[in-house]
Amino acid sequence: MTLLDRDVIAVSDLSDDEIQALLRLAREFAGPEGRPTPRNELADRIVACLFFEPSTRTRLSFESAAHRLGARVIGFSSPAATSFAKGETLSDTIRTVSHYADLIVLRHPKDGSARLAAELSEVPVVNAGDGSHSHPTQSLVDFFTIGDERGTTTNNNVVLLGDLRFGRTTHSLATLLSRFGNKVTCVSPPGLEMPEGVIEECARHGRRPDQTNDLVGALADADVLYVTRIQKERFADPAEYLKYAGSYRIDDDILRHAEADLTILHPLPRVGEIDHAVDRRPGAAWFRQARNGVPVRMALLTSILKETPQILTEATR
Amino acid sequence: MTLLDRDVIAVSDLSDDEIQALLRLAREFAGPEGRPTPRNELADRIVACLFFEPSTRTRLSFESAAHRLGARVIGFSSPAATSFAKGETLSDTIRTVSHYADLIVLRHPKDGSARLAAELSEVPVVNAGDGSHSHPTQSLVDFFTIGDERGTTTNNNVVLLGDLRFGRTTHSLATLLSRFGNKVTCVSPPGLEMPEGVIEECARHGRRPDQTNDLVGALADADVLYVTRIQKERFADPAEYLKYAGSYRIDDDILRHAEADLTILHPLPRVGEIDHAVDRRPGAAWFRQARNGVPVRMALLTSILKETPQILTEATR
Amino acid sequence: MTLLDRDVIAVSDLSDDEIQALLRLAREFAGPEGRPTPRNELADRIVACLFFEPSTRTRLSFESAAHRLGARVIGFSSPAATSFAKGETLSDTIRTVSHYADLIVLRHPKDGSARLAAELSEVPVVNAGDGSHSHPTQSLVDFFTIGDERGTTTNNNVVLLGDLRFGRTTHSLATLLSRFGNKVTCVSPPGLEMPEGVIEECARHGRRPDQTNDLVGALADADVLYVTRIQKERFADPAEYLKYAGSYRIDDDILRHAEADLTILHPLPRVGEIDHAVDRRPGAAWFRQARNGVPVRMALLTSILKETPQILTEATR
Repeated sequence: MTLLDRDVIAVSDLSDDEIQALLRLAREFAGPEGRPTPRNELADRIVACLFFEPSTRTRLSFESAAHRLGARVIGFSSPAATSFAKGETLSDTIRTVSHYADLIVLRHPKDGSARLAAELSEVPVVNAGDGSHSHPTQSLVDFFTIGDERGTTTNNNVVLLGDLRFGRTTHSLATLLSRFGNKVTCVSPPGLEMPEGVIEECARHGRRPDQTNDLVGALADADVLYVTRIQKERFADPAEYLKYAGSYRIDDDILRHAEADLTILHPLPRVGEIDHAVDRRPGAAWFRQARNGVPVRMALLTSILKETPQILTEATR
Repeated sequence: MTLLDRDVIAVSDLSDDEIQALLRLAREFAGPEGRPTPRNELADRIVACLFFEPSTRTRLSFESAAHRLGARVIGFSSPAATSFAKGETLSDTIRTVSHYADLIVLRHPKDGSARLAAELSEVPVVNAGDGSHSHPTQSLVDFFTIGDERGTTTNNNVVLLGDLRFGRTTHSLATLLSRFGNKVTCVSPPGLEMPEGVIEECARHGRRPDQTNDLVGALADADVLYVTRIQKERFADPAEYLKYAGSYRIDDDILRHAEADLTILHPLPRVGEIDHAVDRRPGAAWFRQARNGVPVRMALLTSILKETPQILTEATR
Repeated sequence: MTLLDRDVIAVSDLSDDEIQALLRLAREFAGPEGRPTPRNELADRIVACLFFEPSTRTRLSFESAAHRLGARVIGFSSPAATSFAKGETLSDTIRTVSHYADLIVLRHPKDGSARLAAELSEVPVVNAGDGSHSHPTQSLVDFFTIGDERGTTTNNNVVLLGDLRFGRTTHSLATLLSRFGNKVTCVSPPGLEMPEGVIEECARHGRRPDQTNDLVGALADADVLYVTRIQKERFADPAEYLKYAGSYRIDDDILRHAEADLTILHPLPRVGEIDHAVDRRPGAAWFRQARNGVPVRMALLTSILKETPQILTEATR
């Protein structure tokens, strides 16, 4: 019931209560404008951001969140300039860095690497994406944004579109949505369907997601459309990637089939899945979604590193 | 008449009064030794330094300036480890990062990118060099240094030497010098002359710059010699670069034609344009020029992020 | 007798008294758990970490040390995104950066580069490894760890194993050990022997190190075994490297010849020289050795940048 000193490797590590507490804390941090005011909760703490894969949003929003809380940041944005280049194992890197920081944020291309790191580290580990396995903070940001945009995190009708096979963010988001009583519809190019295991896990927690190729039909009564990128870096074979690249594209034309207030999300980066003209729709929420990365990650860092976040004691005063 | 919340994309964005106020503030920050004392004006602010091109001086002096003011820094020094590598557009990167920081410092290889970024960003953008277009903070540092070394920012006789075609720092410096009543003489290898548009802009503001191939003649009554590097990275064709590389070199021999107290500037890095023996001349000012990067950028950051810089209210007490 | 404002390029720059004072200060900083509590000694100071070669432990532990003392950090982890890429010399980079920071930490592939940097810099320079020449802070960490693990920094019987020719850390460690009255035995593959100059220097300070190929014999009465990596990056010819790679490997089998409480050190990264099963031995101290990097570097940074470290005045109260 407390996240203090805990690792966060997958959304399934968190109870419903813990998720709701995190979202409430993130809401407090976000403030009315979504731009967190600087705080001092984590002054004197060091957060290590170890990114073995490229990232803009995840790394910079974690670093911004740490700084907004007064913490310091060390780390790297690519393994090229580290001892990885000399042949060091991830295990040895983690065991070492866990002596230099109070918390490790890890992005790594290999599935399962974050769980391994958590077992070896002396300090808590937060998974910032491990291969196609999991990316829990992105799912929390997505879920927070749905609540923010729709006014509720329950009973929404959410369409997940795109590469649902390798798109790690959609796996835990689908489960989260099901756990909290939302309807999920999966639309993907043939061959990139949501894995059966994820469908089963959703069904265990709530309603079984629909699966369809009919995007237009799915859009008709959707509240939220969640678009993903075909991630070139997840395909072993470039020819395989080219088969899918450009197989869907959201533009104003197709959106005539949806409600005017449809909320559209995308974890970004986007590389052609959404026409730039769509940016003008009021429901185009991906930059607000990116913005929410800071307060949600502030909530997580504080909850792991501080017994009772001061903001909560303030809020209940 | 205030820089608060303003973008700084080109020196022409700044009025004469604003430039003079910036230089005064930079002087205050520099202190008698040129080594700024740490301040707290920007505690709790985050500055994002987004460098899409290599840099030592500009990036590190911006970061040093931010830290000397108590701010925090996030960003990257190369696009390799960002979502740029996944195909993200500059627009999307800027719109995202403007939610993570209070000000964006941008260096980018494309002309006009800084102006585009300023239009999309939610927070002020400072141009740290966009292609061969503009590099306003370098010009402010150069102008400040001329004032510091010569005792005045007006009535100086300044020779600009080298690649005046692609050398973005010389364009805005020439204009600045003309605006403040200095005489400018342009000396460049044939083919790398100062663009006619810049000459015209100088003429509109003050005296029309002289253009000549006769460096020895130009040196005779010069107060300041500003040397630039032939920038390999600005030439589309390497053969084109090789044609110019090494076409001029300042050494003690040629400097016999100049006054003993000639001030010599170079925005650095230098790669052979100045013989290392020249370092011993009292007028060799390029490392002091590099040093001045910190107080000048401190002045700019404070003016954009703070209503009334405390140092000014202190100074007038 | 004070390190204030001093460069630290080699262990030989430090007197015995200075080394003992540093180790005492590091012990204070380390605290009972080896995890330093944050301090404020260097608030408002900027440390520049200039790494021209890959590093994980050295860079991140220097940065962690700086942050634990309240300092700010600027710099780079690879020269790729700096003006080095435009052809700038190390001299010009150092002379520039010495205006942006209060202390420079330098790692560079060329022997002697740190001494050169110290001569040109306006601020103190700490050598974080220059080619195969010297890596004094690693040697201080190693020596501190021997004291911590064995209860004394004198009269230990220390076996140095591996590439003693290019392994810069073993050169200054051997000298240090000899200076403080320890027995040193050198075991290396033929061709990678400890340089004669180092042997002579040890002999001048204390007992002449033994040199042998008989690891099993050397282990019999050893207190400490110091294992090094064959450093691929120090061999001009890859074929030369392959000749040595894998030529020794410490496993439980060979360790049957040693005392049960043998302390085993390795500067890390390791790439096969130590079997992972050995990690379970109580004397496997390399992660504690890595951890000690923070308090030892805190001690060094404070001693160079502060007249009387507050912790010492506290300790003597």
